Amino acid sequence: MHRKSSFMFTTRKGGDMNNSVFEPIEHKIMAPAKIFVTGMESSHYHWHYDYELVVLLKGKLQVLCGPSPMLMEAGDIFLVNSKMVHGYRGVQDNLCLFIQFPTTIFERIAGKEQLLYFYLNSVRKQFPPKGGFERLRKAACKAGLTIYGEEPEAYLVQNASFYELMAELAASVQFDIRRYPGYADSPAEGQLVAEIGAYIDANCDQKNLTECISRHFGISEKSLYRYAKSFLGISPKEMIDTARVEKAKALLRLSRKPITMIGGECGFTNEATFYRVFKKETGITPKEYRNGGGIGPVEKVVQGYLNFDKREAETLMHSYAEC
Amino acid sequence: MHRKSSFMFTTRKGGDMNNSVFEPIEHKIMAPAKIFVTGMESSHYHWHYDYELVVLLKGKLQVLCGPSPMLMEAGDIFLVNSKMVHGYRGVQDNLCLFIQFPTTIFERIAGKEQLLYFYLNSVRKQFPPKGGFERLRKAACKAGLTIYGEEPEAYLVQNASFYELMAELAASVQFDIRRYPGYADSPAEGQLVAEIGAYIDANCDQKNLTECISRHFGISEKSLYRYAKSFLGISPKEMIDTARVEKAKALLRLSRKPITMIGGECGFTNEATFYRVFKKETGITPKEYRNGGGIGPVEKVVQGYLNFDKREAETLMHSYAEC
Repeated sequence: MHRKSSFMFTTRKGGDMNNSVFEPIEHKIMAPAKIFVTGMESSHYHWHYDYELVVLLKGKLQVLCGPSPMLMEAGDIFLVNSKMVHGYRGVQDNLCLFIQFPTTIFERIAGKEQLLYFYLNSVRKQFPPKGGFERLRKAACKAGLTIYGEEPEAYLVQNASFYELMAELAASVQFDIRRYPGYADSPAEGQLVAEIGAYIDANCDQKNLTECISRHFGISEKSLYRYAKSFLGISPKEMIDTARVEKAKALLRLSRKPITMIGGECGFTNEATFYRVFKKETGITPKEYRNGGGIGPVEKVVQGYLNFDKREAETLMHSYAEC
Repeated sequence: MHRKSSFMFTTRKGGDMNNSVFEPIEHKIMAPAKIFVTGMESSHYHWHYDYELVVLLKGKLQVLCGPSPMLMEAGDIFLVNSKMVHGYRGVQDNLCLFIQFPTTIFERIAGKEQLLYFYLNSVRKQFPPKGGFERLRKAACKAGLTIYGEEPEAYLVQNASFYELMAELAASVQFDIRRYPGYADSPAEGQLVAEIGAYIDANCDQKNLTECISRHFGISEKSLYRYAKSFLGISPKEMIDTARVEKAKALLRLSRKPITMIGGECGFTNEATFYRVFKKETGITPKEYRNGGGIGPVEKVVQGYLNFDKREAETLMHSYAEC
């Protein structure tokens, strides 16, 4: 998970590649869930053992998880299953509610060495929950609101609403029961794709990157294409473009380097390509982005933005929790 | 905790005395509470690390916990704090809802090595919770009702209502924060009294029992009196009488021995004393008890009684949960 207030490329470089795609989520015994609200600019491709429930409170968010990319709009709800590789791109000023929780919560239903694979996706609407998506969004927003509780017992209120959400999930959302190999010996199905994503992030300034990937991971370009498409719904070329634009955004925000230099440093073959791809991905030009036109502009503005979010997020969750 | 369907004296004999007064309560990680309903005839004096919340759904129940015995009536709610020695005597056909939960639940409020000591006692009414006893009884009965859920996700519904109860407890019931010495090195304050209770149970047929206790535990009869009074609210003589009557009840239920023999076997000096004390404790004579007049009569009846309870308990909890 990548929050707006930290920076993708500064945190990535020099890091252990495996660590950067597998995100460990810590739980306190008495609070099995991690609940938070954030504006999302973009995330790495990553996976974790926990489920991740996302409610988009505002704006638009592209979700890369599975064979076709998905555009969430305000009010949409989506569940990322355990060990599924996924990535986010905020295509519009947005606010997301995230609720992450371990698979052990459903152990009694799934049985040993198995887990529940949920079908919860209000964008595709293929398997609507009994009672509709609204009930789940409501339960999720009720749980989300508890993060603002300031009483000493706020964590108990949070646990109560969290378990209500879990009960609603298990009772109304369709699921399969799948075999779940032990933690230690089995990386996620999408681990390779996540590693490729991390490799791209770290090497996006290189020319002929597709060839490099193919050589580095010992797979054909055809297989590479198939993996990327089936797990993220995009081609390796699109993965590379996104990584380059993200790097450019970070440099535009953090450095004073001339824009003409940044394109080359990020691996774009010429300035025209840089402008074209950047505009396609962000909707604005690099110059407009540097001048604060992006959704995650310079650090100070980000800080102010996040402070403002809190009240806005509360208001939005209130309206969903009560409707 | 002693349930009606098992037998005090048969399970006690030959057991380790320390184990019999300290009752370990097991928790599954995802279900931090143990919730059950039972009819209560009588219990040993015992203690445990967990809190124990009791709601009397029906009948009357004498609670021995603290310096004066207490008579709970239908609708009363009482919380036994961690490590407090306590005992129950069902003085009338009753149904009790028990909710046991570990002190770790309030760790974040209490801080390390400390615990919350709650004042929740609707019999004495000394420190009424904000919002009244009804709200807590309601929350407890809502949690109690979840034990009858048969859906696969019933345990999640239970966790939700349990944490709601915990939040209500922490928010509305008055408490002190007390120092809590480590588990291993510190037995409960009332451990000695509980051990004395177990000694009495195992030796109640002996004459001059008060003297025996005094010698066995190396304390004066005066100290013995003071301990019993301050932890259970009754004198050692009353503890002995109760133990003898309980043993007599078990023999009346389980054996075909003549009633005249049973009194002597239980340590009563003569038949007149046996009848007088038995009638005082139970309200009926030994003969009436053997003929099924007690609240915990012969095994078969007990079974039928418990089956009947379930529906009755559900109805009673419903009425409290909704009012």
